[in-house]
Amino acid sequence: MELRKGKYNLITDVAGVKVGHKTISDGNIETGVTVIFPQDDIFHQKVIASCHVINGFSKISGLVQIKELGTLESIIGLTNTLNVGVVQQALVKYMLQENEDIGDRTGTINVVVGECNDMVLNDIRKCSVKESDVYEAIENASSLFSLGSVGAGRGMCCFQMKGGIGSSSRIFRLGEVDYTIGVLVLTNYGLLNNCQFEGIKSSQINYKNETGSVIIILACDIPLSDRQLNRICKRMSVPLARTGSYLGSGSGDIVIAFSTANRISHYPQGILQNIQMIHEEYMDQIFIASIEACEEAIFRSLNENETVVGKNGKKVVSYQEYINQNK
Amino acid sequence: MELRKGKYNLITDVAGVKVGHKTISDGNIETGVTVIFPQDDIFHQKVIASCHVINGFSKISGLVQIKELGTLESIIGLTNTLNVGVVQQALVKYMLQENEDIGDRTGTINVVVGECNDMVLNDIRKCSVKESDVYEAIENASSLFSLGSVGAGRGMCCFQMKGGIGSSSRIFRLGEVDYTIGVLVLTNYGLLNNCQFEGIKSSQINYKNETGSVIIILACDIPLSDRQLNRICKRMSVPLARTGSYLGSGSGDIVIAFSTANRISHYPQGILQNIQMIHEEYMDQIFIASIEACEEAIFRSLNENETVVGKNGKKVVSYQEYINQNK
Amino acid sequence: MELRKGKYNLITDVAGVKVGHKTISDGNIETGVTVIFPQDDIFHQKVIASCHVINGFSKISGLVQIKELGTLESIIGLTNTLNVGVVQQALVKYMLQENEDIGDRTGTINVVVGECNDMVLNDIRKCSVKESDVYEAIENASSLFSLGSVGAGRGMCCFQMKGGIGSSSRIFRLGEVDYTIGVLVLTNYGLLNNCQFEGIKSSQINYKNETGSVIIILACDIPLSDRQLNRICKRMSVPLARTGSYLGSGSGDIVIAFSTANRISHYPQGILQNIQMIHEEYMDQIFIASIEACEEAIFRSLNENETVVGKNGKKVVSYQEYINQNK
Amino acid sequence: MELRKGKYNLITDVAGVKVGHKTISDGNIETGVTVIFPQDDIFHQKVIASCHVINGFSKISGLVQIKELGTLESIIGLTNTLNVGVVQQALVKYMLQENEDIGDRTGTINVVVGECNDMVLNDIRKCSVKESDVYEAIENASSLFSLGSVGAGRGMCCFQMKGGIGSSSRIFRLGEVDYTIGVLVLTNYGLLNNCQFEGIKSSQINYKNETGSVIIILACDIPLSDRQLNRICKRMSVPLARTGSYLGSGSGDIVIAFSTANRISHYPQGILQNIQMIHEEYMDQIFIASIEACEEAIFRSLNENETVVGKNGKKVVSYQEYINQNK
Repeated sequence: MELRKGKYNLITDVAGVKVGHKTISDGNIETGVTVIFPQDDIFHQKVIASCHVINGFSKISGLVQIKELGTLESIIGLTNTLNVGVVQQALVKYMLQENEDIGDRTGTINVVVGECNDMVLNDIRKCSVKESDVYEAIENASSLFSLGSVGAGRGMCCFQMKGGIGSSSRIFRLGEVDYTIGVLVLTNYGLLNNCQFEGIKSSQINYKNETGSVIIILACDIPLSDRQLNRICKRMSVPLARTGSYLGSGSGDIVIAFSTANRISHYPQGILQNIQMIHEEYMDQIFIASIEACEEAIFRSLNENETVVGKNGKKVVSYQEYINQNK
Repeated sequence: MELRKGKYNLITDVAGVKVGHKTISDGNIETGVTVIFPQDDIFHQKVIASCHVINGFSKISGLVQIKELGTLESIIGLTNTLNVGVVQQALVKYMLQENEDIGDRTGTINVVVGECNDMVLNDIRKCSVKESDVYEAIENASSLFSLGSVGAGRGMCCFQMKGGIGSSSRIFRLGEVDYTIGVLVLTNYGLLNNCQFEGIKSSQINYKNETGSVIIILACDIPLSDRQLNRICKRMSVPLARTGSYLGSGSGDIVIAFSTANRISHYPQGILQNIQMIHEEYMDQIFIASIEACEEAIFRSLNENETVVGKNGKKVVSYQEYINQNK
Repeated sequence: MELRKGKYNLITDVAGVKVGHKTISDGNIETGVTVIFPQDDIFHQKVIASCHVINGFSKISGLVQIKELGTLESIIGLTNTLNVGVVQQALVKYMLQENEDIGDRTGTINVVVGECNDMVLNDIRKCSVKESDVYEAIENASSLFSLGSVGAGRGMCCFQMKGGIGSSSRIFRLGEVDYTIGVLVLTNYGLLNNCQFEGIKSSQINYKNETGSVIIILACDIPLSDRQLNRICKRMSVPLARTGSYLGSGSGDIVIAFSTANRISHYPQGILQNIQMIHEEYMDQIFIASIEACEEAIFRSLNENETVVGKNGKKVVSYQEYINQNK
Repeated sequence: MELRKGKYNLITDVAGVKVGHKTISDGNIETGVTVIFPQDDIFHQKVIASCHVINGFSKISGLVQIKELGTLESIIGLTNTLNVGVVQQALVKYMLQENEDIGDRTGTINVVVGECNDMVLNDIRKCSVKESDVYEAIENASSLFSLGSVGAGRGMCCFQMKGGIGSSSRIFRLGEVDYTIGVLVLTNYGLLNNCQFEGIKSSQINYKNETGSVIIILACDIPLSDRQLNRICKRMSVPLARTGSYLGSGSGDIVIAFSTANRISHYPQGILQNIQMIHEEYMDQIFIASIEACEEAIFRSLNENETVVGKNGKKVVSYQEYINQNK
């Protein structure tokens, strides 16, 4: 087996997935919103999904229902920790607008909003994200999107350098079929001395508290059950460990994974559904591809980024600038 | 051992607990907000807490961190399913205002917002709850509060009759000390034919889908660890079963329990903390008292309620009116 | 929808399921072994399965792998608490003998052994079960089997009367197909005063500790995923609550559920498998049928039983004898 | 903060912990038993404990009760996968012999038996471990013990070299107190090409299935709650990832952690217990020390080992021999 990257090396290499950003940048306010569309008409044709809490110092909303029903039925939003509420409300209103049956002829909608704390660069107490920012992010959604200090990634720090949005993808063949795995990360974790990327690796361990977080969204087109997706989610501690995290106590390290291979109709098309799933014997290759894609997504969130000056003139340098300064 | 009720027979019989409502009633809009204050200065002096998902068709937010850290650090809000976002955002803003250190000299805040779907009586698509409603509910918080179709309970139905807010408490003696357990419920579950309360019990089982939900908040002043509180949470399927639920597939049945006996300081007062906890041998009596208090809280949400006419003239009768009509 | 009982009103009404007992009765030694065959060739053609710990004061073995892989690949054994080891070892040896590839051309085998504590009637410290007893139970396996004080049920007590093995089944129609659910219970829980069965119900709650346990095995031929089976498992607190348990602290209340509808081949027959599953919208009816079958299985474990005299002449009366004495 | 090793650099640097082996080596039979004594009189004075399933392709027994009650009350046994039953039965009998009240004046006992699959070197189908082997391991228990291909480690392989028993410890200061963390591992996981230890690291990733397992036992004398111990357990995926595992699908990767700082009396000494616990703010340092100790324990299981020839003349070389051969 050999793994190659997808066309864009982005989560959107999984067909139908779209990502949009709204970046808010104003000196003291450096924050934003990122939205991930799993598929079109996601409420009526849900995707099979799972999630996993690597460490739960997190304010993410929407996980309870994913766990119970094994499906994702909405756009995923990402933002700063203290704006989860407004993003959730905006996503609900958007989904209501797009789906006239919700809350009328059928039940309600479960939206998912993940977060990291960007208070190093952003005056987070201002709760600056507005509902209109979410709608702009939605309008911007596309299969091509930027990495680094954009959208929810605007104010994030990773290994004490500039973090934010990263993404990567892997294609691999099982039998006669090419499958695609794509990962999007919002990185906001780690201490500089512990970073394992080239040019950084220090001989001295940093025993300071590691308070940051990371959100990992994994999409694929492999036929997998929610239990199998959960097994993939649990492996995402591997790229965190390998890049230099010890899963600090104050971190909100959350993984959501979904597969577009089997769609679950909101309104039953019959009593029985036919589902395809990979035999468990083939899970190892999927684990490896997922870990590789996630590790590169993390790297890209650092490497394809810029130095940002934020709240009170606080400057956080990019990985490239750090490397150049410390040659 | 004999169990007696507390002074008010409310969750607020646990010293320091306060509850406030904001009811929104306007014909098509029958909804609201209820807030529960676990204790004063809850962010700096957290209470030990746990939670349990009996069934997870739920949009509740804030559980992930309770599970990880075993503490509750904010007011709990309750509202309708599609307004979790706005209530969450309002609670965050309130906590920021009350605590200048959050998001500045210390990290962020985890708020908890539970919900049930009141779309039978309320035009839920309107997302009518505003941030100002949350602040009014907060201002109304007191140790005395109303039951029935008030606050988040305004539009709820239970056993196809009028549901909403219920509460009850139990006092019991262990050794030389009297302890208090209080329960608040937001009831929105069950089918009429399955209801086990007096005057209703039907010989015919209703095989229709049971789509409602219930939120159960349990407070106590018993020294308990988060693991022990979790064990209490899990017992709350017992009063649901006994009152006539089979924990329907479409229900969001969620329990949060906290104890005020040990407070956990946000800023460490030292490396070690001294915690008291009940020996496991005494948990049975606490289980029984909790189940009794919850069962009565559910009953009161029906019995101390009124008939409500809501969306499109839809009328849901109270338990008392039903009993009178069916004598 | 109307529910009728299966041909035998036993778990074995699910085609392919077999049950065998070995009863050990010798005055001070009143114990035994019960085995449940989920299907023929269970190692090579696994059944989809799940499990749930209602309360975990339990020494059951084998649950970890069921949770991870969502399949059951062996016979289930039931016995007394202190003989789990010997029954596990015997089941492993039996599975090795039946399957020459295990531990040679393929990996190992996960067996499941549940238990309740029969020390009221049985001198449990003697660890009297031998490997040969397990093989006898296996030889006795059939679609017809006895209830009450037989096999693992020999020394068990339920509501302070004679408990043990109970079983029941329900058939119901979804679309054009009749499906069968069968339940087998090993009952060893509850206090007399709390018992809700006819002729017992007391007005006085017993506040003593409830230290017993119950094992619930549910079989069905409905196409269900492991997640859906887990949702059924969680509902089994309902019949416990309704019959009079409050899920005591010292109880080991465990549920295992499996479906024979989709078999999972140990050796992959291809990369992909086709699985059928019920649309979630139909789960409620399955919940109700499962609860009914379990509640009747519990009742039968009491009602179709006998008075037993065991360790040190201790006598535990049957439900029928109790009713007759207390008319 | 600086971390130093304990006196022996073994898990037994935590005062009161003892370890014993019984090695069985006979050409085709290369297996054994290892026992860990958490403390003296462990049944009557339990230790606070937790556990975590990193991946659950495992036949470990005893975890259910640890999770429910947050305590460990017995010796832990380790052996090969198909001998869990006999080791469990032997440990039960030993605990009965040592404690006359179990199963007589008080309830039963929960023993813990972990396993890895040693079928590469051991004819595992023979189920060669006898109860007497367990008693010998118990008699051999001491604060000094051997590493490598001894006890349960006799037939294990790690990164396709010789694995088995490893151990390490760390001492660190919090405030005025020195605390000790000790780890014991049974290593049986990983592919050679993925191994990150010096002299091995290959440029080529091995995409073969990783079918092995690892058991990690962590002891400490730090005052921690069961929830906090669980958080440590979850971090043990970090040393696995860093040494070269991707947590293969067929692995049984299990962690058990206990603290000797607070003992829980089996018979209540009063209604309330006073417990000390570390403030959550200090958990990061404990995570780092635990990860370091585990990583070194894994390394020592390879480095302080020998080449073993087993079943059908199969030879598995030691790390040292591999390094020497590949210089």
